[in-house]
Amino acid sequence: MLSEALQRAEQVAPRLAARAADHDRDASFPVADFDDLRHEGLLGLMVPLALGGMGAGFEEYTKVAMALARGNAATALVFNMHASVTGALAGIAPELARALGATEAFFEERDRVLRAAAGGALYGVAISEAGAGSRLSLLQSTYHRDGDGYRIRGTKSACSGAGHLDAYLVAARAAGGGDAPVISYFLVPDAPGIEVEPGWDPLGMRATASHTVRFDVRVPVAALLGGVEGLALPLAYAMPQWLVASYAAVYVGLGQAAVAEATGYLEKVHGAKGTVTTAARARLGRAEAAVEASRLAVEHAARLVDVAPGEPETNQWIHRAKLLAGDTAMGAAASLAEACGLGALGRGSPLERIFRDARSGAIMPPRSDICADYLGANALGLDPRSVMEAPPW
Amino acid sequence: MLSEALQRAEQVAPRLAARAADHDRDASFPVADFDDLRHEGLLGLMVPLALGGMGAGFEEYTKVAMALARGNAATALVFNMHASVTGALAGIAPELARALGATEAFFEERDRVLRAAAGGALYGVAISEAGAGSRLSLLQSTYHRDGDGYRIRGTKSACSGAGHLDAYLVAARAAGGGDAPVISYFLVPDAPGIEVEPGWDPLGMRATASHTVRFDVRVPVAALLGGVEGLALPLAYAMPQWLVASYAAVYVGLGQAAVAEATGYLEKVHGAKGTVTTAARARLGRAEAAVEASRLAVEHAARLVDVAPGEPETNQWIHRAKLLAGDTAMGAAASLAEACGLGALGRGSPLERIFRDARSGAIMPPRSDICADYLGANALGLDPRSVMEAPPW
Amino acid sequence: MLSEALQRAEQVAPRLAARAADHDRDASFPVADFDDLRHEGLLGLMVPLALGGMGAGFEEYTKVAMALARGNAATALVFNMHASVTGALAGIAPELARALGATEAFFEERDRVLRAAAGGALYGVAISEAGAGSRLSLLQSTYHRDGDGYRIRGTKSACSGAGHLDAYLVAARAAGGGDAPVISYFLVPDAPGIEVEPGWDPLGMRATASHTVRFDVRVPVAALLGGVEGLALPLAYAMPQWLVASYAAVYVGLGQAAVAEATGYLEKVHGAKGTVTTAARARLGRAEAAVEASRLAVEHAARLVDVAPGEPETNQWIHRAKLLAGDTAMGAAASLAEACGLGALGRGSPLERIFRDARSGAIMPPRSDICADYLGANALGLDPRSVMEAPPW
Amino acid sequence: MLSEALQRAEQVAPRLAARAADHDRDASFPVADFDDLRHEGLLGLMVPLALGGMGAGFEEYTKVAMALARGNAATALVFNMHASVTGALAGIAPELARALGATEAFFEERDRVLRAAAGGALYGVAISEAGAGSRLSLLQSTYHRDGDGYRIRGTKSACSGAGHLDAYLVAARAAGGGDAPVISYFLVPDAPGIEVEPGWDPLGMRATASHTVRFDVRVPVAALLGGVEGLALPLAYAMPQWLVASYAAVYVGLGQAAVAEATGYLEKVHGAKGTVTTAARARLGRAEAAVEASRLAVEHAARLVDVAPGEPETNQWIHRAKLLAGDTAMGAAASLAEACGLGALGRGSPLERIFRDARSGAIMPPRSDICADYLGANALGLDPRSVMEAPPW
Repeated sequence: MLSEALQRAEQVAPRLAARAADHDRDASFPVADFDDLRHEGLLGLMVPLALGGMGAGFEEYTKVAMALARGNAATALVFNMHASVTGALAGIAPELARALGATEAFFEERDRVLRAAAGGALYGVAISEAGAGSRLSLLQSTYHRDGDGYRIRGTKSACSGAGHLDAYLVAARAAGGGDAPVISYFLVPDAPGIEVEPGWDPLGMRATASHTVRFDVRVPVAALLGGVEGLALPLAYAMPQWLVASYAAVYVGLGQAAVAEATGYLEKVHGAKGTVTTAARARLGRAEAAVEASRLAVEHAARLVDVAPGEPETNQWIHRAKLLAGDTAMGAAASLAEACGLGALGRGSPLERIFRDARSGAIMPPRSDICADYLGANALGLDPRSVMEAPPW
Repeated sequence: MLSEALQRAEQVAPRLAARAADHDRDASFPVADFDDLRHEGLLGLMVPLALGGMGAGFEEYTKVAMALARGNAATALVFNMHASVTGALAGIAPELARALGATEAFFEERDRVLRAAAGGALYGVAISEAGAGSRLSLLQSTYHRDGDGYRIRGTKSACSGAGHLDAYLVAARAAGGGDAPVISYFLVPDAPGIEVEPGWDPLGMRATASHTVRFDVRVPVAALLGGVEGLALPLAYAMPQWLVASYAAVYVGLGQAAVAEATGYLEKVHGAKGTVTTAARARLGRAEAAVEASRLAVEHAARLVDVAPGEPETNQWIHRAKLLAGDTAMGAAASLAEACGLGALGRGSPLERIFRDARSGAIMPPRSDICADYLGANALGLDPRSVMEAPPW
Repeated sequence: MLSEALQRAEQVAPRLAARAADHDRDASFPVADFDDLRHEGLLGLMVPLALGGMGAGFEEYTKVAMALARGNAATALVFNMHASVTGALAGIAPELARALGATEAFFEERDRVLRAAAGGALYGVAISEAGAGSRLSLLQSTYHRDGDGYRIRGTKSACSGAGHLDAYLVAARAAGGGDAPVISYFLVPDAPGIEVEPGWDPLGMRATASHTVRFDVRVPVAALLGGVEGLALPLAYAMPQWLVASYAAVYVGLGQAAVAEATGYLEKVHGAKGTVTTAARARLGRAEAAVEASRLAVEHAARLVDVAPGEPETNQWIHRAKLLAGDTAMGAAASLAEACGLGALGRGSPLERIFRDARSGAIMPPRSDICADYLGANALGLDPRSVMEAPPW
Repeated sequence: MLSEALQRAEQVAPRLAARAADHDRDASFPVADFDDLRHEGLLGLMVPLALGGMGAGFEEYTKVAMALARGNAATALVFNMHASVTGALAGIAPELARALGATEAFFEERDRVLRAAAGGALYGVAISEAGAGSRLSLLQSTYHRDGDGYRIRGTKSACSGAGHLDAYLVAARAAGGGDAPVISYFLVPDAPGIEVEPGWDPLGMRATASHTVRFDVRVPVAALLGGVEGLALPLAYAMPQWLVASYAAVYVGLGQAAVAEATGYLEKVHGAKGTVTTAARARLGRAEAAVEASRLAVEHAARLVDVAPGEPETNQWIHRAKLLAGDTAMGAAASLAEACGLGALGRGSPLERIFRDARSGAIMPPRSDICADYLGANALGLDPRSVMEAPPW
């Protein structure tokens, strides 16, 4: 039985699919898609029931994201950023936050932000930078105390939804810090001082509007996420689900869309005649088996996030999920393109877009090569931070 | 929490592992392994509680088989054959059997056979033939009515456990049949007229004693499985779990053993120094992720077998499980051999044996290429029997 | 030492590269590229010296095509069609043609056509059709005798260079034929009655202008290629170089461009610092080794075409070349995209275009799956025509 | 036209093949194979004509090694070691050696050693050690000046042909050296003080008798290779052909044997009926194409070694050849095993042995992962020694 949220996601998905080709062509943001998600209450997916949301956990998020990605993976990727912000906020344990120094003001601000999401506010993530990628420890954006708030300055790249967000989750380094970087998260409301530089025109996932954004803003103290400085790096290693595994669901949905499109195309071309070649049938069979196995892996990781967040086994599964989902989507899309032929690969056809969208899965941080290294280090009982050539964060 | 059966299997597995190198070297049957399994009651795994067994379903079987395969995959493969016979017998629905014509004598015989398994009897499968492989429709062994029983004649190949079995599940064709072959199963007790031709000396899975066996025997009417002739082919297509998916668990366990052995070997060589190369760490990481994903696929298929046997979705998952488990075990073993190096590949070392054992997974019927074709045909809504170049059965 | 033609191709290639992004963006035909090729005399590459051309053989063609493809693979693909027409015409052995019935008129026409190419005329190929692909035996376009010439009618798809060609090589079926189709080639000059339907807007190789073209034209008898009807199918099987292997060189050049672009990108990002990760270095190393090996295969096949055209060993190498070049280009481009990251995959960057262009290599006829089947059939001494599920032609 | 040496190798190969199963079973040295090679003069393959040998270059060696490996790859691997010693000795340029300090005594000894090979002496290589592998810079065996000669002490592993050799090429470190290790080569005649520890019992290449050997010997000054200390490391980087590429030919031959055996097996099982499945035909086709491409790569590298030894392009090709030959042989053997099925994989059948033999190609130093890293570093213009995580030597 599908959850209420998943039912709504599945109802919305065909509308996303119908608009996908246009947004892909123009690299334009799917405004109507987010109107639909807002209307269905799905922007409140991760918001607790008490705050007016749907109170979903990570597993339910995962299934919703897959469903949306079967419609348009780019839309689902932006949705994933919003879910990451709201899900991470909702997931902060009050006792822990208080023990670390969070005040009531923080909780009031947090609840306000979540209530706003349930009401339709859209949030995004501004972490990556041109030189550092998503390596938190290498970020160059800074913040410093400025009166009763903080001043944040820096230039962020690949900020999905840029220009369409109500607030940005910004990661920045404490200015004038010593050797060990102190990296903190701030939720920065859209305001003057936030300047979007249009220019997003990539191979795939073109509708995410992941422009570069310049920040020079002042925020109140309560904008500091968790109410404590320096949380970004330890969180990334301790509970990496929103940085690592939330993407994975999108690429499973994309892989499923590849299988569905290829199946439909071959049926259309060959009808009920069964004239699909053995080689093409086998490509379809191998692809659908691999995609469904990657789905199980992502769902399994998601269940562990819900029941045992931060546990070593959970974090191992989070990285397995990212690795398998990204590699599988690309492999499936490439092989299915070969099974269907050039007739299925015209601009504007779904399989053509999916093939391009699929290339980014293994590359989005942490890359498949990094995930594989992390998994191997963990399997050997080694600390990834000390042994990996390029630590993930 | 582990089931009682799984706990016992995990306790027994190290003893299997300790004997594995000797049986592999000599291609000898692991008699002591089966004494252990008998002693722990695991030969009654699939036997209903009411008949003195453990009453396991397919999912529990799957986990037990994985655990045994982590010790010795060859032993687990023989165990899989025994579980197939007892599991299939136990799974016969009484109403259906009666509707098809099964008499009380059949049920009495069935119960006797299952009680004997709970008491320690070991059964195996004699289906394959030199010319037909496991294509049931091409079998040349025959049976005909002979007084108050049947006379069965033919030569079976790759009969795992040959010479160590209390009874053989034999598939044979009704003699003098017309165009459509009538293929039936018989449970044939070990007796004069069953002649084992030693000669099993393969690349891997050497301890299964899968010799050729000549049959020229008389059996009572009650030996006819299900009490009805002609069940073999429809069963193979309708409920293929024991013919297809029971192997899969063995190759998941083998893949897990490959990961464990490689991890242990790299730890031993490099200690806590973290001097394992990036390339080797990444091979280990990719292998363990793939193996664990194949485990999820096999366990998912097994759960479906328990709750929705014979459903199209279940049968699709059964073939996905077989495909993924076989291909993954070989890929993981080959890559991990490369990660560890020649020092890990001396005769008698576990990784050397695992590499050889792993080659058979994708080849055992139905082969990976056949599974892929079946899956593709199903995805396209085509009947595999009519469209596949080489139908599985 | 480079041949004169190869030197010119290498000089021209950077100019092609400079225009590639614009033509890719607009799916527009690279008119200036062909002006350059014309100016350098390269349209006469395959034309005998005696007729004013460069008198190149297949191996020299191969190297020229690789060089052009390193600049813009789409331009090289159109050039390959022109070279196929002129090369096949130039390669017709006079004695054989006469023995088959060719008259002096045919030779005069042939020489006129070749002289025109040396003077700058551009030819292309109109074989494929929507339902048949490039399966010659399934073509639906027809021709019939009409006075002192032929009337040709049909709709051709994927006709590279459509609208920019001086003549089209059209394959058509003799109208009213019996069971065995009689497929003939005609060289049809651009004329009223040839109608280009714009609409070419594909994933990759976008600058080839491979539009659909409708033919309803009358041609003189001398337009019949070889002067004999029914040559198309036997030629395809006996001397498949121009139908199969001429593409291969283009995809080798594309693979080389992928390696060069990725190398340049990584050098630019990492400078002389050697901070490229081990995983990225290994991806680059594996890709460049595979691409160079595919180059050797294509050059070896090309040499055999020159010295032993039509020999079984030659035809086996022709199919190996096609298979290896197509698969290698895609694999290299996909892996190098992963090595370089999303920063290298913006629209307009060479690697982004190459990744899309590369997808078509394995799909262009005969597909990699078909080549593999053909090669296996040949290795087994079987006639591909009788044993393959889908014969290539 | 085949060279005399190649003709003889092809005549001898079937005799090697006929003995291969026995030596593989027993892990015994193929004494009769080397009697055959000796009788045909092939032990003098690399010895200059003036010294009684066949005067072959690297390319001819490559073809001879492939031919022998088509018979028995293990025999060819031992032959490769002998060819490495004699080829490296024969290849020492007199002017360079004199400039570095080599005396007439060195040349006399060198010529004596080569003449002996032409007369039937068999040499091998004792470089690897348990802790260091083949990393020359990490070797622990030592030598020091001792009167008018050197004393060499150490334990070598994986010394192919151990116990059957007339002399061993030993790499050792100058005792008491400073920070930079001085590694030298000595040709050590079989003598008391050389103790073979039987124990070679590996997965594949079982007939090479690559036992551990303990050395505690005195040699005359003239045994120092090249007459100069410290040559080993610079030679390994400057002219790596005998350390890297000589293996490659063996694995090409092994891949060819896999193709030939699989072809023969499928023909035997299916006769002329053409009932081989599409999937199996395609596996055969892909395997034979890949193996033949790897052959071209190895032959191309070998030609460059002959005409431009030590050039960067040559050394790049040497590593490409090693990478491609090792990976291709394993991939082909594994896929062909799947095409043929378990019936082709009984102990004693060629395909079973080839599958095991093939696993070592990518693992023998430098491993495929190391070659890929080296190739990528070179492509980026970086010095492999400074940038690679694990430099090859």
